[in-house]
Amino acid sequence: MNPGNPAVENTGAGAGTAGGGTEKADTLALLERGRTLSTPVLRAAVDRLAAPMDTVAAYHFGWIDVDGNPADGDGGKAVRPALALLSAEAAGAPAEVGIPGAVAVELVHNFSLLHDDLMDGDEQRRHRDTVWKVHGPAQAILVGDALFALANEVLLELGTVDAGRATRRLTTASRKLIDGQAQDISYEHRERVSVQECLEMEGNKTGALLACAVSIGAVLGGADDRTADKLEEYGYHLGLAFQAVDDLLGIWGDPESTGKQTWSDLRQRKKSLPVVAALAAGGPACEELARLLAADAKSNDFENFSEEEFAHRAALIEAAGGRQWTADEARRQHAIAVRALDDVDMPQRVREQLVALADFVVVRKR
Amino acid sequence: MNPGNPAVENTGAGAGTAGGGTEKADTLALLERGRTLSTPVLRAAVDRLAAPMDTVAAYHFGWIDVDGNPADGDGGKAVRPALALLSAEAAGAPAEVGIPGAVAVELVHNFSLLHDDLMDGDEQRRHRDTVWKVHGPAQAILVGDALFALANEVLLELGTVDAGRATRRLTTASRKLIDGQAQDISYEHRERVSVQECLEMEGNKTGALLACAVSIGAVLGGADDRTADKLEEYGYHLGLAFQAVDDLLGIWGDPESTGKQTWSDLRQRKKSLPVVAALAAGGPACEELARLLAADAKSNDFENFSEEEFAHRAALIEAAGGRQWTADEARRQHAIAVRALDDVDMPQRVREQLVALADFVVVRKR
Repeated sequence: MNPGNPAVENTGAGAGTAGGGTEKADTLALLERGRTLSTPVLRAAVDRLAAPMDTVAAYHFGWIDVDGNPADGDGGKAVRPALALLSAEAAGAPAEVGIPGAVAVELVHNFSLLHDDLMDGDEQRRHRDTVWKVHGPAQAILVGDALFALANEVLLELGTVDAGRATRRLTTASRKLIDGQAQDISYEHRERVSVQECLEMEGNKTGALLACAVSIGAVLGGADDRTADKLEEYGYHLGLAFQAVDDLLGIWGDPESTGKQTWSDLRQRKKSLPVVAALAAGGPACEELARLLAADAKSNDFENFSEEEFAHRAALIEAAGGRQWTADEARRQHAIAVRALDDVDMPQRVREQLVALADFVVVRKR
Repeated sequence: MNPGNPAVENTGAGAGTAGGGTEKADTLALLERGRTLSTPVLRAAVDRLAAPMDTVAAYHFGWIDVDGNPADGDGGKAVRPALALLSAEAAGAPAEVGIPGAVAVELVHNFSLLHDDLMDGDEQRRHRDTVWKVHGPAQAILVGDALFALANEVLLELGTVDAGRATRRLTTASRKLIDGQAQDISYEHRERVSVQECLEMEGNKTGALLACAVSIGAVLGGADDRTADKLEEYGYHLGLAFQAVDDLLGIWGDPESTGKQTWSDLRQRKKSLPVVAALAAGGPACEELARLLAADAKSNDFENFSEEEFAHRAALIEAAGGRQWTADEARRQHAIAVRALDDVDMPQRVREQLVALADFVVVRKR
C-alpha cells in the first residue's frame, strides 16, 4: 500500500511476455522514432493556426512556456505516433507513410485534452497549468476546435482515396472519444457505475483513438479494411490495458514517476476500474468502502482529508479485490490485443515490436 | 432612424436586381425545398448521438423544448441547405445529390453556434435560451464537438473520391470559421478595428461557410475544382453581402422581424461594419461617436442606458456615413457575387435561382 510501489509489477501483469532490458531499450527507441519523425510535421501544422491560437497551442504542447519562451516540455509518452508508424510498416509500407496519420491522431488527442480539461475543471496537466487556466476558457474551446479541424486537414490534403478512408476512421474514433467524455461526465453525478459501464467508457475514451493510431498508418499504406479492423482490435484492447494500468497508477502510482499527487484519482473521486470493481465485489471491505464514498460525496471537507484517510480508502479497495481485479484485467486485455495480431499477415519484426510495445504499456510506471 | 424601418430598402441595396412578388415566392419555395429535403437527414444524423447529447442537440435545433416535448422551433432562414441543393444542380446533378452536403454544412454551422454562444456569453438565440444556459457549458462544448465530427462522418461515409474532396472544402471552411471567431474575440478588447479587419473577420465567419454551401453540392455531383472555386467566389461575396445586411439589421432592424432587441448590436458593443465605417470616416459625427464609444467601453452603467442614448449613437453612425457605406457595401458584394456566376457553365434556371437568392439575401428584413 506504499504508493511508491509500481502498481502493476506487484501483481505480475505483463509477466511472461514482458521482455528484458534489450527489448525495453528497443521499445524506447520506437517511441523516440515516433516522436522524432512526427513532431516537426506536427509543429508545422500547428504553425498554420492564426495568432493567437498558434501560441496557445504551442503552450499546450509544451513547446513554449507561459511567457512565450522556448521550452522543452514533456510531450507525453508518444505511444500513439509510435503505433501509427508501426501501423504503416505492418502494411508493408515505409514508416514515413504513417506520419500524417501520427500527426492527425496527436491533433485529435490534444483537441480532446484541451476540451476535457476545461469541462473537468482540471488546472494542471504534465506539471503545468492547463490552457483554460492560463489563456481562458474561450481559447481552450477555440484552439481545441482548430486542432480538430487541422487533424482532418492534414489527412485530406493528401488527396488520395486512402486518405479519405483514414479520415473516416479518425472521425469514428473522435466520435467515440466524445461519447466517452459524455459518459465520464454523467457518471460523476451517479452513485453507482457498473464495471461494464466503466469499461465501455474507457474503451471510448482510450481504446478508440489507440485503435485508430494502429490502423491509420496501414490504411494510408493501402491496407484493406479487414487488416485495418484487426489492427484496430489490437489497438482497442491495448487501450483498455493501458487505461487499466493508468487507473492503478492513479491510486498506487509513485508521485515521482507519474507527476501526479498521491492517491490522485481518489482525490478527484474518480470512478475508475479499481473503485468500481471493489464496489461490485461484495463483502465487508466493499460495504465499508461504499459507505465511506457515499459520505465523501456529500462532504464539504473532502479537500482537507489527510493522507491517512485516502490511504484507508485505497486499503479498502485493495482488500475488496479492486486492485487485483484491475491488474488481472490489464493482463486479460493485453492478451486479447496480442492475440489479434495473429490474424494479420505482417513482417515478423513489426509483429515483435507491436508485442513489445504492448508489454511496455502494461509494465510502465508512468 | 426609426428602428422599425427595414434598413436596406431605405438605402436601396439590391435595387435593380431584386425581383417582384413572383420571384420572391420562388425563392421562398427554394428555401422550403432545402429545409424539406435536408431536415429528415439532419435529424437522422443527430439521432446517432449518444444520450444525453441527442436531446441537447434536438433542443438546440428547436425540435424539442426545455422539457423534452416536441416543438416546432424556428430553424433559421435555411439559406445554406437551399444553396447546397442548387449547387448540385449547377453541376448538372439532381438536387438530392447535394443533401449530404446540406446536412454537413448545417452541422458545422450549428457546431459553431453552440461554441460561439458559450464563448460570447450569449444567453438567447432564436427567442430561446441557449444550450450552455439550459444544459451547462460542458454540454455546449461536447455537443458542438459531436456535431463537428458528425459533419465529416455524414460526408465521408459516402465513400467516394468526391466525398473526400467535399470534406476537405468543409474542413477549410471550418478552419476559417474558427479563425473568424478568434478575430471577433480579439477585436472586443481593441479600441480600433479597421474596416479591412472587420471585412476579413466577416469573410471568415460568414463568407467561408456560405461559399462551401454553394460548392459542396457541385463537388458531390462531380464538378471540377475550377467550377467549385468559382461557385465559392459567388458564395463568399454573397456571405459578405449577407453579413453587411445583418449588421444593418443589428442596429436598425425591426425587433418584431429580427426577434432581437432594438439597437441589438450597439447594446453588445459590436464593432460591426456600420460602426467601423463611421469611425473611419472622419468629421464631427465620427469624432463625437469615437469619444462616446471610448467612454462607453469604460462605463459601469452601460446596461442601464436608455433607448435615447442608443438612438443617439445610431444617429451619429448614420451621420458619419456608416449606414450608407454598409448598404453600399452590401450592394457591391452582391454585384461581385452575381458576376462570379458568369464564369460557370450551368443550367439557365439554376443561374436565375442563384441570382434570385442573392437578391433575397440583400433585401430581407430578418
